[in-house]
Amino acid sequence: MSLLVVGSVAFDDVETPLGRRERALGGSATYFSLSASQSSEVRIVAVVGEDFGEREMGVFQGRPIDLQGLERKPGASFHWKGAYAWDFNEAKTLETHLNVFADFHPKLPEAYRHSPYLFLGNIAPELQLDVVRQMAERPRWIALDTMNYWISGSREALERVLREVDILLVNDGEARALTGERQNARAYQRIREMGPRVLVVKHGEFGVSLFTPEGTFAAPAFPLEDVVDPTGAGDTFAGGFLGFLARIGRMDFPALKHATLAGTVMASFTVERFSTERLESVTPSDIQKRLSLFSDMIRVEAL
Amino acid sequence: MSLLVVGSVAFDDVETPLGRRERALGGSATYFSLSASQSSEVRIVAVVGEDFGEREMGVFQGRPIDLQGLERKPGASFHWKGAYAWDFNEAKTLETHLNVFADFHPKLPEAYRHSPYLFLGNIAPELQLDVVRQMAERPRWIALDTMNYWISGSREALERVLREVDILLVNDGEARALTGERQNARAYQRIREMGPRVLVVKHGEFGVSLFTPEGTFAAPAFPLEDVVDPTGAGDTFAGGFLGFLARIGRMDFPALKHATLAGTVMASFTVERFSTERLESVTPSDIQKRLSLFSDMIRVEAL
Repeated sequence: MSLLVVGSVAFDDVETPLGRRERALGGSATYFSLSASQSSEVRIVAVVGEDFGEREMGVFQGRPIDLQGLERKPGASFHWKGAYAWDFNEAKTLETHLNVFADFHPKLPEAYRHSPYLFLGNIAPELQLDVVRQMAERPRWIALDTMNYWISGSREALERVLREVDILLVNDGEARALTGERQNARAYQRIREMGPRVLVVKHGEFGVSLFTPEGTFAAPAFPLEDVVDPTGAGDTFAGGFLGFLARIGRMDFPALKHATLAGTVMASFTVERFSTERLESVTPSDIQKRLSLFSDMIRVEAL
Repeated sequence: MSLLVVGSVAFDDVETPLGRRERALGGSATYFSLSASQSSEVRIVAVVGEDFGEREMGVFQGRPIDLQGLERKPGASFHWKGAYAWDFNEAKTLETHLNVFADFHPKLPEAYRHSPYLFLGNIAPELQLDVVRQMAERPRWIALDTMNYWISGSREALERVLREVDILLVNDGEARALTGERQNARAYQRIREMGPRVLVVKHGEFGVSLFTPEGTFAAPAFPLEDVVDPTGAGDTFAGGFLGFLARIGRMDFPALKHATLAGTVMASFTVERFSTERLESVTPSDIQKRLSLFSDMIRVEAL
């Protein structure tokens, strides 16, 4: 069943203590769709410029990713430059060139308007709302990602769209900013009064917490020897998590737990290399192997 | 089987955003022994002053805690004053009065020298080494806690005692300081070349990671609505973790996983109230209930 994603497709210049890349493929919809397409059919709504070439388009092709909604416009693609220090918890943004993304107004192709599952990637809440309005019928579920820029700058629209969504994905800093609470646990509680019945909180290298009406779950990150570039980890997690839910067509507590493991494993591939380098080459068998290792790792056998 | 702990028994003045306490019972050996004595017999080696009264002694009595090694000396007890901001990750030390603890030289009563299990709480590495030397025979396992003060100030002695221990418990900042690595994952790997075959890394509100020769495990913290005072969480975890291992007399991977859950649950009681208030009143049934909730929470059922 098709999973519609609205977000950015971009070029990233990234520097981490372990290396650097220039004009590498990036953007929330990019990481999300490469990750989600391992388990579901994905439909992209995004915009790129004339500099988005065959090499970049080739990354999406040959996968169950519908590119009908990927608009190409005169001008340059969204270009982000950022750097990470050793702790990898937060990117320092050096430059943001919105380019064609500045006038992005998502337009859903007719077929997309009937998508059963919708992920609103990290774009202006007004645009996220507009996408919801364009759907012919209400999707089975809507998931949303956001960031502090919109939490402080577009709070009213964000609160409105939050009332429309089923699943919210944020990190700890965003959870606190969204609620004004200074203790994480309190922020998590408050968010659940704001609309989304499922809350996923990403703790970076310390894993993920899941809050649902049926119970709470938490999983560590997949242990890696080296994290090379954390860019895209959150969107890759979202792709693995939501792609899994779309594939099995369930959103009960056991399904959400498995989705958390799927998202965690997908994110572990992304951060092992720069940009989408690892995500492009990962095979279903690589994913299965790591998922099995991870399930064994967190399982507590009876004594 | 008896578990010997060497550490501090102290008075704490603590202030957190949720309240404050003065001259509350504290110290590493206090939290450890109250926690471990829920599953094992504990023997304490520590020192207190003349101000350590009947109310304080009463907290240890009526439990399987041997107080033969709790020395009383002229002068005042160790007194720590600290405060926490909202994130609760690190205490700000306002005052430290070592008092009788300044001249603490652990002396093991004869019976203690045959203890099968030994926990070296957070004291000078030279004293930790001296305790190891006083043992009549090598304990089945030795576990150790330390802090940045000793990592930077007594590195040589610390490295020596590390080569004698089986289990090391540290937090992320200590892991990085101990190894000079700036990425947590690398620090964890380096530590395992320094002696201890089992490494437990405490991530505060984000849970615990366990590294063993048989595999890696991680568990989230027990989700609480409010953390009131994090003081003693690490020592309470150590007490629950090591008390469990001492009780079942095993140190294989499945046993270490269960010990991690036991430690996590014990720590969750400590942080719910100030000082040892909750730890003093917790019953075996409270512990069992929470352990069962926690096991259910982290279990991933087949779909």
